Amino acid sequence: MFDPVEKLKEFIRHPSVSADSTYRDGMQGAQVFVANLLGSLGFIVEVVKTDLHPIIFAQHGGDASWPHVVIYGHYDVQPADPLNLWNTPPFDPTIIGNRIYGRGAADNKGPLMTNIAAVAQLLEANPKIPLRITFLIEGEEEMGSPSFPKFLESYKDRLQAADFVYLSDTALPSADQVVLTCGLRGLALFDLHVTGAKGDLHSGLHGGVLRNPIQALAEIISSLHTPEGLVNVPGFYEEVLDVHPWERAELKKLGADEQSYKDFLGIDAFYTLPGFSPFEALRFQPTLEFNGIGGGYQGEGTKTVIPSKAFAKISCRLVPNQQPEKIKQLVMAAIRARTPSGVKIEFVDQHKGDPYVVVPPDRANTPPDQSPVLARAFRAADQAVTEVWGRAPLYLREGGSVPIIAQIKQVTGLDSVMFGLFLPEDNLHAPNESFNLDVMRKGIETSRRVLAALAE
Amino acid sequence: MFDPVEKLKEFIRHPSVSADSTYRDGMQGAQVFVANLLGSLGFIVEVVKTDLHPIIFAQHGGDASWPHVVIYGHYDVQPADPLNLWNTPPFDPTIIGNRIYGRGAADNKGPLMTNIAAVAQLLEANPKIPLRITFLIEGEEEMGSPSFPKFLESYKDRLQAADFVYLSDTALPSADQVVLTCGLRGLALFDLHVTGAKGDLHSGLHGGVLRNPIQALAEIISSLHTPEGLVNVPGFYEEVLDVHPWERAELKKLGADEQSYKDFLGIDAFYTLPGFSPFEALRFQPTLEFNGIGGGYQGEGTKTVIPSKAFAKISCRLVPNQQPEKIKQLVMAAIRARTPSGVKIEFVDQHKGDPYVVVPPDRANTPPDQSPVLARAFRAADQAVTEVWGRAPLYLREGGSVPIIAQIKQVTGLDSVMFGLFLPEDNLHAPNESFNLDVMRKGIETSRRVLAALAE
Repeated sequence: MFDPVEKLKEFIRHPSVSADSTYRDGMQGAQVFVANLLGSLGFIVEVVKTDLHPIIFAQHGGDASWPHVVIYGHYDVQPADPLNLWNTPPFDPTIIGNRIYGRGAADNKGPLMTNIAAVAQLLEANPKIPLRITFLIEGEEEMGSPSFPKFLESYKDRLQAADFVYLSDTALPSADQVVLTCGLRGLALFDLHVTGAKGDLHSGLHGGVLRNPIQALAEIISSLHTPEGLVNVPGFYEEVLDVHPWERAELKKLGADEQSYKDFLGIDAFYTLPGFSPFEALRFQPTLEFNGIGGGYQGEGTKTVIPSKAFAKISCRLVPNQQPEKIKQLVMAAIRARTPSGVKIEFVDQHKGDPYVVVPPDRANTPPDQSPVLARAFRAADQAVTEVWGRAPLYLREGGSVPIIAQIKQVTGLDSVMFGLFLPEDNLHAPNESFNLDVMRKGIETSRRVLAALAE
Repeated sequence: MFDPVEKLKEFIRHPSVSADSTYRDGMQGAQVFVANLLGSLGFIVEVVKTDLHPIIFAQHGGDASWPHVVIYGHYDVQPADPLNLWNTPPFDPTIIGNRIYGRGAADNKGPLMTNIAAVAQLLEANPKIPLRITFLIEGEEEMGSPSFPKFLESYKDRLQAADFVYLSDTALPSADQVVLTCGLRGLALFDLHVTGAKGDLHSGLHGGVLRNPIQALAEIISSLHTPEGLVNVPGFYEEVLDVHPWERAELKKLGADEQSYKDFLGIDAFYTLPGFSPFEALRFQPTLEFNGIGGGYQGEGTKTVIPSKAFAKISCRLVPNQQPEKIKQLVMAAIRARTPSGVKIEFVDQHKGDPYVVVPPDRANTPPDQSPVLARAFRAADQAVTEVWGRAPLYLREGGSVPIIAQIKQVTGLDSVMFGLFLPEDNLHAPNESFNLDVMRKGIETSRRVLAALAE
């Protein structure tokens, strides 16, 4: 008998911090644990070597005419520090009330175990169920999945044989309301470096003669928005997909309250694109943000230098159908055109990721060539959620980014059904991460019904 | 017989780093050394206790009708680190060619010893010379002279009995050209802190909803200059003293070359107030500079946060007759007026210092009530420099700040004759500081002649 909570505890006990090489044993332990668990359920497990952490590719095959679902997850977790802020040891899972505490409990070990448990129940009830299931579980998600593109190219043919991807690595707005995430923003990141004089200068002996790179940087970056909050880069919005009326209507059902959101953020005024509520803006519109800035003296007291250098870290969140590389080039071109005399600029490229959108079936803008299995999965999920949670799911885009979802779509053509399971209060990436065990139980039942319905 | 180079070596051997309490013995050693040296020359020495490092107040008195000069200097030095960049031990003075290497060699032990040696020679030749001399030698100059205002108030009456201040703590443009510094810029410094949300936020989950404090900071600080380079703060230039034609003419004699200056700075274009050459701008005009900026993530790679906070360190260099506190209030008012919605700002006050100007005698704008002894000192200095160096001195304002000069003027009414002795290549505040011994020898002879002429 498969006990999902016990299995989850065992999973959390492996400290699988992918970004820290001192956790090599924990990574190895978590990977072996998952591989053995899927093997025990009758899967044929491949542990695919990468440059860093292996990817688990496990198949439960069958007739080529059967529906074929790829269930995605990741076995790596964020670092647990600062350790002193944890109330329980991060890698010693502890149940308090209806929550299990531990690093990775919600991201992604709990939600992944939810789907493994659903599969285990399904196969226990009917080992010959006419459904092909592939688990695709990586170990580099918390590092930006650097090995994933290469893996995708190698496994392209085998993945193309599937119908869609199913995953639980997005959020629920509350324990009562399921969201099937239908869109993710993309990313385009780079650093801007501005250099003035060849060294830091005494601001008395040389002040008044040359352009301070901090001033030049401020002039450049303050030009990148209009006073109304639009990104002030020619062509930036050119390929932004119009928001369909059903999407705005769906979002209204969420019943989000502006004052509560202001209180949560601790601000007294929003700064949102004209024509969009804050809840719409963060889902439907792109941004250009400054994630960091630095230059000159930053310590206590004063140091009267004119610094030689200053920099800003810039990131854009992108929406369909913006193309990250094109947007980077547009922003960089605007920066180049606005760089004043007397300073030099340099860009350091960082990573990028495509935005993603999937339209559920039976909408005005559902693509006519949508996979019938995907459409069945969405309908099955709608029914299962409605029955198990007592309330229909919402179909919403999310402001965050899961770049591998767009990568999978681009390389294999597969769309994703994203069944969110973690909650705002789960403290992802923070101390005292936890996962709600009631959500887990309902999640198992929901996923079991979705998969069972596909096999009918 | 007084050997100035041997005395300077002994002075440098005391590691008198005022800002570092581990150098307490060095501070004590340097202070006792100077006090004993002046005592041996017949001075009545008072060691004036302050909250930190004592001030040496040493008088060689005489008839109240005699001219009275106050010679200023400081016995403290900058920290010597990074030590690994020194070619010789910083506190073991080493003569190589015509230079003496060591921390404080040029700032200010060498120039101060130059003036002590001139006094020693003068008193040796005529112990009853009709001249009153007061040495005022502090130990906190490299920390911004925090105890000086309190001392000035206590010694106000005794200082007011003097005619002028004489010091060597400014620069020569080259070993061939003496400058008598006639003006210094003032300072007004503060930090600006901008706060948005109450914590750092995920730029995906919340991006597009609120104003990023880095963006707000960039908008604010980029508004503080016009595209032409003027400080864009109402009233900023209101009290700027007009530059007198003789000052521009004097500066032309310096023969400074724009291309060489660009090469020195490593820039390809100046950014100077309209109507001013770079050499004029840095002496005659105020500035508003950004000495540092910080906020958000500054490490390697990326972290997609919307930071809660950002800050800039702002400093103004001021010229006569700008008032530091008034300028601070004007700049802060402009910043308040330009702060966009959705962020809060806070100022952290830093220090300030008044600008200073003294007009030599026989100029169109010499004050009619100028002290006749000061006028005689300037004329004597002009003659002595011309004879000893073979070239007349230049009378120039400097871009840097020595706040105590304006403090002395304000409290006691005394003006200063600033006889520069250190050179650009002397590496002040840097590793391998040195002092040119030819300059020292000529300096002693010059100061000796100036003081002798006063006594005539």
